Amino acid sequence: MVLERLKQVASHVTGNTPLPHPSDPLSESEIETAVAIVRREHSNVAFNAITLWEPRKAEMLAWVADPAHTTRPHRVAEVVAIGKGSKVYDGLVSLDEGKIVSWQYTPGVQPLITMEDLQIVESIVRKDPKVIEQCGLIGIGPEEMHKVYCDPWTIGFDERFGNEVRLQQALMYYRPDIDDSQYSFPLDFCPIFNADTHEIIHIDVPPVRRPINKAPPNNYHAEAIERDGGYRTDIKPIHITQPEGVSFTMDGCIVNWQNWSLHIGFNYREGIVLNNITFNDKGNVRPIFWRLSLAEMVVPYGNPEHPHQRKHAFDLGEYGGGYMTNSLSLGCDCKGAIHYMDAAFVNRAGAPTTIKNAICIHEEDAGILFKHTDFRDDTVTVTRARKLVISHIFTAANYEYCVYWIFHQDGTVQLEIKLTGILNTYAMNPGEDTNGWGTEVYPGVNAHNHQHLFCLRVDPNIDGPNNTVFQVDAAQGAGEVGSTGNKYGNAFYAKKTKFETAEQSQSDYDGDSSRTWEMCNENKINPYSHKPVSYKLVSREVPKLLPKEGGLVWKRAGFARHAVHVTPYDDSQIHPAGRHVPQTSGEPSQGIPAWISANPSAPIANKDIVLWHTFGITHFPSPEDFPVMPAEPMTLLLRPRNFFTKNPALDVPPSYCSVPSGKKQRFPGAMAGVGESKAANPKKGCGC
Amino acid sequence: MVLERLKQVASHVTGNTPLPHPSDPLSESEIETAVAIVRREHSNVAFNAITLWEPRKAEMLAWVADPAHTTRPHRVAEVVAIGKGSKVYDGLVSLDEGKIVSWQYTPGVQPLITMEDLQIVESIVRKDPKVIEQCGLIGIGPEEMHKVYCDPWTIGFDERFGNEVRLQQALMYYRPDIDDSQYSFPLDFCPIFNADTHEIIHIDVPPVRRPINKAPPNNYHAEAIERDGGYRTDIKPIHITQPEGVSFTMDGCIVNWQNWSLHIGFNYREGIVLNNITFNDKGNVRPIFWRLSLAEMVVPYGNPEHPHQRKHAFDLGEYGGGYMTNSLSLGCDCKGAIHYMDAAFVNRAGAPTTIKNAICIHEEDAGILFKHTDFRDDTVTVTRARKLVISHIFTAANYEYCVYWIFHQDGTVQLEIKLTGILNTYAMNPGEDTNGWGTEVYPGVNAHNHQHLFCLRVDPNIDGPNNTVFQVDAAQGAGEVGSTGNKYGNAFYAKKTKFETAEQSQSDYDGDSSRTWEMCNENKINPYSHKPVSYKLVSREVPKLLPKEGGLVWKRAGFARHAVHVTPYDDSQIHPAGRHVPQTSGEPSQGIPAWISANPSAPIANKDIVLWHTFGITHFPSPEDFPVMPAEPMTLLLRPRNFFTKNPALDVPPSYCSVPSGKKQRFPGAMAGVGESKAANPKKGCGC
Repeated sequence: MVLERLKQVASHVTGNTPLPHPSDPLSESEIETAVAIVRREHSNVAFNAITLWEPRKAEMLAWVADPAHTTRPHRVAEVVAIGKGSKVYDGLVSLDEGKIVSWQYTPGVQPLITMEDLQIVESIVRKDPKVIEQCGLIGIGPEEMHKVYCDPWTIGFDERFGNEVRLQQALMYYRPDIDDSQYSFPLDFCPIFNADTHEIIHIDVPPVRRPINKAPPNNYHAEAIERDGGYRTDIKPIHITQPEGVSFTMDGCIVNWQNWSLHIGFNYREGIVLNNITFNDKGNVRPIFWRLSLAEMVVPYGNPEHPHQRKHAFDLGEYGGGYMTNSLSLGCDCKGAIHYMDAAFVNRAGAPTTIKNAICIHEEDAGILFKHTDFRDDTVTVTRARKLVISHIFTAANYEYCVYWIFHQDGTVQLEIKLTGILNTYAMNPGEDTNGWGTEVYPGVNAHNHQHLFCLRVDPNIDGPNNTVFQVDAAQGAGEVGSTGNKYGNAFYAKKTKFETAEQSQSDYDGDSSRTWEMCNENKINPYSHKPVSYKLVSREVPKLLPKEGGLVWKRAGFARHAVHVTPYDDSQIHPAGRHVPQTSGEPSQGIPAWISANPSAPIANKDIVLWHTFGITHFPSPEDFPVMPAEPMTLLLRPRNFFTKNPALDVPPSYCSVPSGKKQRFPGAMAGVGESKAANPKKGCGC
Repeated sequence: MVLERLKQVASHVTGNTPLPHPSDPLSESEIETAVAIVRREHSNVAFNAITLWEPRKAEMLAWVADPAHTTRPHRVAEVVAIGKGSKVYDGLVSLDEGKIVSWQYTPGVQPLITMEDLQIVESIVRKDPKVIEQCGLIGIGPEEMHKVYCDPWTIGFDERFGNEVRLQQALMYYRPDIDDSQYSFPLDFCPIFNADTHEIIHIDVPPVRRPINKAPPNNYHAEAIERDGGYRTDIKPIHITQPEGVSFTMDGCIVNWQNWSLHIGFNYREGIVLNNITFNDKGNVRPIFWRLSLAEMVVPYGNPEHPHQRKHAFDLGEYGGGYMTNSLSLGCDCKGAIHYMDAAFVNRAGAPTTIKNAICIHEEDAGILFKHTDFRDDTVTVTRARKLVISHIFTAANYEYCVYWIFHQDGTVQLEIKLTGILNTYAMNPGEDTNGWGTEVYPGVNAHNHQHLFCLRVDPNIDGPNNTVFQVDAAQGAGEVGSTGNKYGNAFYAKKTKFETAEQSQSDYDGDSSRTWEMCNENKINPYSHKPVSYKLVSREVPKLLPKEGGLVWKRAGFARHAVHVTPYDDSQIHPAGRHVPQTSGEPSQGIPAWISANPSAPIANKDIVLWHTFGITHFPSPEDFPVMPAEPMTLLLRPRNFFTKNPALDVPPSYCSVPSGKKQRFPGAMAGVGESKAANPKKGCGC
């Protein structure tokens, strides 16, 4: 087995099989190879993760610039393994060289909880005598234990148990029937599970007990809807078809669409990773972003009653957005002509596993791209937009997160996230006061207030790696009303604050000034505007972190304290809340706060930098969100400003174009007889 | 003619032809009737507007509640006419009774500028000797005057000229060729046009002259693109088809779609007006909004140099969003199966004119409506959304505004506005400093900073007309970290502030607290959450008005001083900046500030109220926005909160549904063989 893999590696080297791109996720066979190499020296470890150790940026920048004359970056696997006594090992395995490059025991940390880790808990909980006892106390008999369910979460951090032992908290539910939604039947106690011994080591029991909910089930499956009046029958089909196929091409993991080119990677934590994003500006391929990913998130809940403070999932760092990814299906998740990509992972035993159709790549019509009508004569140009959507969906216990990376023809990159799935719920007694910390969304069901705070990692490469970030605020001009310089009081301008150091870059959103942040290359000046070429972060869903300074979440989720942090580029700094997140105490805070406090005056102007942006929503539940929540969208834009010398989407053929002279306008639609300028009389307007 | 119309009126009354709905816009024949009735007594007036005088709300509420036993509201036309000596008359004409109900001379006001008013100016400007002289000074010879163009704007307000004379300012441009975009060749002077005498009464000339731009044309018509490398040829078609037609029905102007029902009106100022919006909540037709419209807007420009302070167009109040509406075309502006509605207006001479296809009504696929996968067994329900879009597009000289009223299956109403078209531009000399008030978007072309501030008028009817508005802020709980009630610091809640008086309701956006506003019916309590039924305004693009307090724009656009104002309902209060907006001085401020200051302590809790919301963007131009601007979207939501007892979109058939028991789920898709639950093994997941 090992030999076979090593032979494959050799054949890569000799060019007998196509080489993966250095940014490609590890293939199943590469994972097998890595496991085989590890097993030679560490036969008894269980695997937590094997993922591409991304080539160092300097090496990759050089290779991308001139692949023919530059050493190809090696394929290296990053390994997280768990040995005897729950010892955690972080290792690097060179696949090209067939050897372990580094292997170290990392004390006092807990790597993330895998789906396998999660799956184990429920059956153990059901058999635990103390759990059975607690169930009995709230009205669930021992013969009903098969109806008891749990969503196992990492424990987050509980000071009573520390981080030496790998722990999960079991959020408990009940299903009267196997097909009933358990979230209408939350139980009031919370067992703590030891992942090493597979034992329940403690149960948190509230001072006031809440017997099992007696309300009828509240379901959304077809049988329930049919019983409750049935589905509507007046929905006529909307067909979206691309008979000639898609307008993008795939070269391995590199997608080329319109003027865009980018590499689509995927890993177990961040899910989709976009690399080396460039735009072909009339033949000049210009780098824009080196790497984009959703790097972390935290979902703090707002109920201060013990032990709900432990509900603040870091869904990426504690569970993995890649690991939890859904296998997607045509017509359900995406419509049209779809290109899917699979994602390969390792399981605990060291075998590769694959999520089929983990990533969906498709185009969508996007309405009007631009339009102008001359009011004098009704001559008009109208051009329709489309967009390229690269998406995945992951299920984090009760919630689903639908992540859409969207590329627009006008040079804009959009990140849209839709939240759907089911509210996390807790039991409440009839007449009980939620104290404002939650909402009774169904009789006996308390859905606690919470935030979804995401951390976007932007590694800008705006016409090169040396970039600068400016905070931009809309500001009133100087001079009072009546003064010479501002007689009518209408002066306003874009006030720009240059970030010189990492410490100074810690900045919050300001809705009043419509604050944005510009990532610029001060070495490249737009020839028309005389301003540095830039991309602007336009993000409007930017609540502040509500958990208080010095508290548990504030300490653990340091990345969420500010809307923007900027740090000097460092290959090792990928994870805003730290590399191993479960059971971190936040003392000291891991990730961004640690990096910045290590060198607060690190210069960040005209340097290779990373911008970290925390955004999201604060959710006060209501009954409309239950028993399954209509998708709630949030979005942000990365927009070119002073990057191009004109609208970069002018190469998109119009739907219609007429001019005052009446001269026939020739464009692809017109030539094909569709959308042709039919009229000598331009008054007739759009004729398609 | 008069007699014929009166006969038609009579035939309506006797039921020989179908009666219009009382909220229907006036038809061409009703406009003719109104003109005929006016002409009998006022033969020499010119018409500025004839529009439906909407029935008083009390009368309409009664009629809607029980049309069979309630007197049908009369059809009344509201008339604005201009008589000799530019005297303005406001009149009401009863179409049912065939008589003028009221007619009054309104001194000191100027009604809006119609398209006809605008069209007149250019030819006069070209012939004016002083304009020809100014053109000569900047390098345009008298033989080239046919290449000189102007976008006539209302003068806004200029204290030198007051408001007794009807004036327009001519923003001047040049076209080397008739097909060239004039916005690359702005001229530096600004003639003032007297609309009564058709004379140029003054020319504003800047202290520093700017000769005509010598840069080559910057065009976006097909000929220019073909010359500049051509259109891309790699775009494959995306077909959107509805072979079985649409899922909505039209009953006159009433659209029924899914659980929604609403009346679509249209007038010359606001454009689309949506009336009596209800949702069928399992057989219970519940009122939500009585009336929704975009009621006003202002576009202040940020350059304090004279006379740019006059650039602050009230596009609705000064020109009319209805009057400037485009005639829409299938495949260009909208895709799929479209229902169009026309819009009828009166012209200056009193003849009805119609914009064909002024309103587009269509459905769109809207991605995932909701989804949840059980991580235990991969059983899943996934349901796709669609939306109903009611849209119009209007061209305000250089800019286009695309207005989309969007209805979602989950009870959400969305207003999306896309800005496209062309930047307003001004001349600049080579090397000239913009002083930060604008951006050189092309050599010699200065695009000034500006804001687009829209005023949404919401007349809520949340389970009845008596409603209350709460300001809602996400707030940290009391108690410091370590305290008994907030040991871990994670407490947070929705802090609600009840608006008791109109004055108190004047409130600003707070991005930090993700501020929203809830329109509630305190008399109707959600049986689950025990909170009042409500709709929440979620709006994140809410810049503050940048022109300073006491200045020209601040005075004239009083509605824009705050994000939200709430006023007691008054039939006459429709226009946030006043009824006749051109040439208002803002002394005193018209519209909202006047209404509130007339009775600041007017009670607004549990009353029939109107909420006015100002939102928009601040635009610092960049070369990417030129020569035509890629559409920039902005959006806001009106979301049900505690209005329904569960997700109101559960009646939408899923794309796929499987359950843990493996029981076959029957739903419309499944029954048709599409999306059927194929698997006994629920692990297989979504199979469509």
